[in-house]
Amino acid sequence: MTHAHLEPSPAVAARTLRVGVFGATGYTGQLLIELLRRHPHVNLHFATSERERALEDGTPLLPADSAPLAEVDAVFLCLPNGVSGGVAARAVAAGVRVVDLSADLRLESAALYEQTYKMPHPAPQLLPAPYGLPEIGRAQLRQARYIANPGCHVTAVLLALYPLARAGALSDAPIIADTKTGVSGAGKEPKPESMFCEVYGDVKPYNVGRRHRHVPEIEQALRKLQPDCGALIFAPHLVPLEVGLLATVYATLKPDWTLERAYAEYQAAYAAEPLIALHPLGRAARIREAAQRNGAVVGVSEGQGSTLILTCAIDNLRKGASAQAIQNFNLMFGLPETAGLL
Amino acid sequence: MTHAHLEPSPAVAARTLRVGVFGATGYTGQLLIELLRRHPHVNLHFATSERERALEDGTPLLPADSAPLAEVDAVFLCLPNGVSGGVAARAVAAGVRVVDLSADLRLESAALYEQTYKMPHPAPQLLPAPYGLPEIGRAQLRQARYIANPGCHVTAVLLALYPLARAGALSDAPIIADTKTGVSGAGKEPKPESMFCEVYGDVKPYNVGRRHRHVPEIEQALRKLQPDCGALIFAPHLVPLEVGLLATVYATLKPDWTLERAYAEYQAAYAAEPLIALHPLGRAARIREAAQRNGAVVGVSEGQGSTLILTCAIDNLRKGASAQAIQNFNLMFGLPETAGLL
Amino acid sequence: MTHAHLEPSPAVAARTLRVGVFGATGYTGQLLIELLRRHPHVNLHFATSERERALEDGTPLLPADSAPLAEVDAVFLCLPNGVSGGVAARAVAAGVRVVDLSADLRLESAALYEQTYKMPHPAPQLLPAPYGLPEIGRAQLRQARYIANPGCHVTAVLLALYPLARAGALSDAPIIADTKTGVSGAGKEPKPESMFCEVYGDVKPYNVGRRHRHVPEIEQALRKLQPDCGALIFAPHLVPLEVGLLATVYATLKPDWTLERAYAEYQAAYAAEPLIALHPLGRAARIREAAQRNGAVVGVSEGQGSTLILTCAIDNLRKGASAQAIQNFNLMFGLPETAGLL
Amino acid sequence: MTHAHLEPSPAVAARTLRVGVFGATGYTGQLLIELLRRHPHVNLHFATSERERALEDGTPLLPADSAPLAEVDAVFLCLPNGVSGGVAARAVAAGVRVVDLSADLRLESAALYEQTYKMPHPAPQLLPAPYGLPEIGRAQLRQARYIANPGCHVTAVLLALYPLARAGALSDAPIIADTKTGVSGAGKEPKPESMFCEVYGDVKPYNVGRRHRHVPEIEQALRKLQPDCGALIFAPHLVPLEVGLLATVYATLKPDWTLERAYAEYQAAYAAEPLIALHPLGRAARIREAAQRNGAVVGVSEGQGSTLILTCAIDNLRKGASAQAIQNFNLMFGLPETAGLL
Repeated sequence: MTHAHLEPSPAVAARTLRVGVFGATGYTGQLLIELLRRHPHVNLHFATSERERALEDGTPLLPADSAPLAEVDAVFLCLPNGVSGGVAARAVAAGVRVVDLSADLRLESAALYEQTYKMPHPAPQLLPAPYGLPEIGRAQLRQARYIANPGCHVTAVLLALYPLARAGALSDAPIIADTKTGVSGAGKEPKPESMFCEVYGDVKPYNVGRRHRHVPEIEQALRKLQPDCGALIFAPHLVPLEVGLLATVYATLKPDWTLERAYAEYQAAYAAEPLIALHPLGRAARIREAAQRNGAVVGVSEGQGSTLILTCAIDNLRKGASAQAIQNFNLMFGLPETAGLL
Repeated sequence: MTHAHLEPSPAVAARTLRVGVFGATGYTGQLLIELLRRHPHVNLHFATSERERALEDGTPLLPADSAPLAEVDAVFLCLPNGVSGGVAARAVAAGVRVVDLSADLRLESAALYEQTYKMPHPAPQLLPAPYGLPEIGRAQLRQARYIANPGCHVTAVLLALYPLARAGALSDAPIIADTKTGVSGAGKEPKPESMFCEVYGDVKPYNVGRRHRHVPEIEQALRKLQPDCGALIFAPHLVPLEVGLLATVYATLKPDWTLERAYAEYQAAYAAEPLIALHPLGRAARIREAAQRNGAVVGVSEGQGSTLILTCAIDNLRKGASAQAIQNFNLMFGLPETAGLL
Repeated sequence: MTHAHLEPSPAVAARTLRVGVFGATGYTGQLLIELLRRHPHVNLHFATSERERALEDGTPLLPADSAPLAEVDAVFLCLPNGVSGGVAARAVAAGVRVVDLSADLRLESAALYEQTYKMPHPAPQLLPAPYGLPEIGRAQLRQARYIANPGCHVTAVLLALYPLARAGALSDAPIIADTKTGVSGAGKEPKPESMFCEVYGDVKPYNVGRRHRHVPEIEQALRKLQPDCGALIFAPHLVPLEVGLLATVYATLKPDWTLERAYAEYQAAYAAEPLIALHPLGRAARIREAAQRNGAVVGVSEGQGSTLILTCAIDNLRKGASAQAIQNFNLMFGLPETAGLL
Repeated sequence: MTHAHLEPSPAVAARTLRVGVFGATGYTGQLLIELLRRHPHVNLHFATSERERALEDGTPLLPADSAPLAEVDAVFLCLPNGVSGGVAARAVAAGVRVVDLSADLRLESAALYEQTYKMPHPAPQLLPAPYGLPEIGRAQLRQARYIANPGCHVTAVLLALYPLARAGALSDAPIIADTKTGVSGAGKEPKPESMFCEVYGDVKPYNVGRRHRHVPEIEQALRKLQPDCGALIFAPHLVPLEVGLLATVYATLKPDWTLERAYAEYQAAYAAEPLIALHPLGRAARIREAAQRNGAVVGVSEGQGSTLILTCAIDNLRKGASAQAIQNFNLMFGLPETAGLL
């Protein structure tokens, strides 16, 4: 987990960047602010909320419309889908860099966005946006003016599959992603299905099959890596945890691939990654290994015949949201990629 | 959920059977005793334990060797694998009927048992034993002298697949069973991996692939229903629940099958089953629907192409152990199948 | 736990009473319906809801205004405070007996109600109502036309103190009740403070001191038993459980009382109670002993000097709400007190 | 929360101290190592375990007997009671400073230790040891050669009471400490009562009254502050959390004290404390505010008459163990008191 090209130039190391956070009171916004406060090169200049006037620690909160965009180097958007894209466009126009944690910039086509999210795209001129999963596409993120930060399910499923897709090793059989996620992924808004008594003692599959809005996003990223891979079957499950997400992915190799050759691709892809811990062949990842931490844990296990069992555990609010946003921010500004994250 | 041939004869209904429970202090033994106490046709005559002398409510416990086998009509064995088979053989020899909750009588061949459990079979003369999953083979259980009661993972996976396997609808692609289970399935013995602080906040895959001891048992049952079905990939996950088990099964249909035709098989198989609730097509089962209850909940959902998502939720200690044992006992003695269970 | 005067007359035992439930979709309403369905002398004739048209199992739900009051023998009211009292008055006027699970009939004076609940009393003509904690006042509940069913905190605290208050043993030092309660006590309505992520991993004191609305109700009951007892300090704590409530009560004896004499009062009060389990002196009650059960568990432990530690565990939805409502109903109609509860 | 005298001299700030940890594999040892690794002035030189040869991250573990005591500036002892004191004595003799997280050095008299822990004291020559609760006695910890690090219940109860005891404000009425603690406090050793299925869904009082071994330690500290304070009634409760402890303390003021005057003592005692957050008068502390953090949260609420409700929340493994050990270490060596802790 060392990474040769991450050393900052002395000039960069001395720099402090001013940032703003839009949407500071949700789970991702709160954690982002906590992480930014410990970031050695960041000065949190403003934070916004439409509902509250201050954070618990007293930090004042502005309405988004009053945020002094012109005074910051970058903004992080923890805003609802459909709203975030418009703010991103305004920021980009003002020369402010953007890490967008909403879904607005993740799909490359406005038409697919409309079909998936059932609303017009708020900023089609920004598409396609650089896709902020550094381990699968770091180059386009350096110096990027804006970045679409992927969500938790997508991050875990893609990290589980990336080395195989990059190598073109996936057969055309369906790829099955059975994920288990903590409740914070549903956000802070009170909803019946997020109440303690609904979740406690339960494991609940939801939107299984191809119904979940993240299916097009995962397939978009996979197909760019390997156009002939199989279709995705996605089955998310809600489990009684606050944070954490485990993706258990069942993928079938092309005929000329073995388990060992497949594992060698994982070693090649992840050995030098500062935020990925790859388990020895045969050891599966578990949530406890990744919860409260900023990276991901990946495991490769034997299934049967040419079908493998790939596991990826992350903290859904960290590598699945706010920590990844900071990783992207660091790349954008040429800072050490893990600044503020270790 | 009505079942025509379950009406008891008046003679039977009036009868009270004397039973004994071997291994009364584990989770399945405790719950079994609680269920037997409310059973209208049962008198609990003795219960055994090697470590304790009384249950919490004062019921005396005998060492197994002192149990008055000759005085009961039937015994339930909640004993360790390797021990249970021997007690079963003694009971059968004494003319006492047996429901064995251990794994000893579940595999049909002593050789496969030795290979799977790494010890000689304690009572090969009892093999093959009637397999106590009533919904897939009720006929052989009526009047049976002894019954192998299946475990929780196996019950859930088989109930998810049975209607398709019975109809010969499964392709030869691997069948993937991703299960999520509560901690009581690991038993009452203090173990590091069952400690509160190990389980809390975690989801942990274990023995994934073909390594779990239940793989041969599931395949044995599936192959009897459909010899040409695919091999099993089994990935159990420990989740922070006390009771409950969800099997999410991904199965691929033969080319001439549709989702609707497949669902019709579930309706045909389960509509009249008193202990199975079949969800409408497209609704997945969740643990909360089955926890603390004696039956199973089954769902059939669309996956992609010919791959379906089948879900089965049970209480691992009830339909996955003790309640199913009573269901088998009822069948054995010609009692109403759900006596003591509704 | 046997109770001599609970045997029903043959006439009563054969009877079936028709009942209605107002407010069927909250936690107490749902559980009440589940319990009533297994009650041997009850026919559930209607259930109401303003928001839903059917229960999960298909039982139709009526708006309260359409409920055929005239067709039932009794109604259970699981309605909001301020609404329930009015429905109670209508039912009583129609000759239908009432068990009211709201707070409306619990305080004996309309003035105290107004001061506590900050609204006018909806049915002052029904005050004072028979108070439905059978163990401390069974006589007035037999044949009662309507009953105020106490809530969970109050039930647990009063059962912990009753034998001492009845004997006049409490000094005038403050009585401290530190309670720990599961989240279902807060009801089914989505609220920020009942969300999974708010409760998980936390223990939270709320409305401590004399601020909780149950303080006047507890003191009202205590003072009727012993007018010179000390004032109540009440500190409820929310813990991450679905159901269950533990009251740990610190009470000081008058000078001439010893621990042993105090314990003898508990034996005298509770030995014959069918729904109270009294622990041996020195063993404290815990939630696990009472959760999912219909009775209460009481413990008496030594504190220091003349201060005792009294513990009472209940299931907040059962002995703290719905099961107690059925116990009261049984008393009202001369049925066996534990019918449908064991 | 600023603290004037905490600025290190430039000499100190540049220093790196070599430390060893005895007992690295328990919960406190593991966390201590994690915290020490981020400490700016510490080099972890060795860690010991009798059972394991390496930590999960590969750090080698030595048997305690092979640890190179002479090579370090200080050792932290996370060893069993009765063992730890002996190691402490050896280290002190070798001129190595000691922070002992066991109970061995906490009581000031060997006789009281024997009576409390039912074994001879392993190192009576070290008694009385400086008591490592910095907020109540920082002066004696600076430059100390060895320090007794208090446990989690004691820390929380003393922080709740300290300002009153220091001011002599406590009456002679019993002080009641009702604590709620997570399961990690019971240690990592597999025990029946720490199993997931025993703890889940429960709240369990244990060793209530005066039976817990921490009663003499709390009273020893209180009486040094205020010799005429009342006796302690202590009722710890196990709750289904991994980490966190809440002490709810009921204390009675002397006649001439008011709530406001009492609160002023809390402000005076804690306003400048870097690791104590004092809530506004009337707001109680909750576990969520302190879990995963290194400090304590204190609340003062009105009870009734002269009885107050004092709350203190800590992370039992941090301010209740390992973080406090580092705070003590920092004091010992003249480092900034919060080095490695913010």
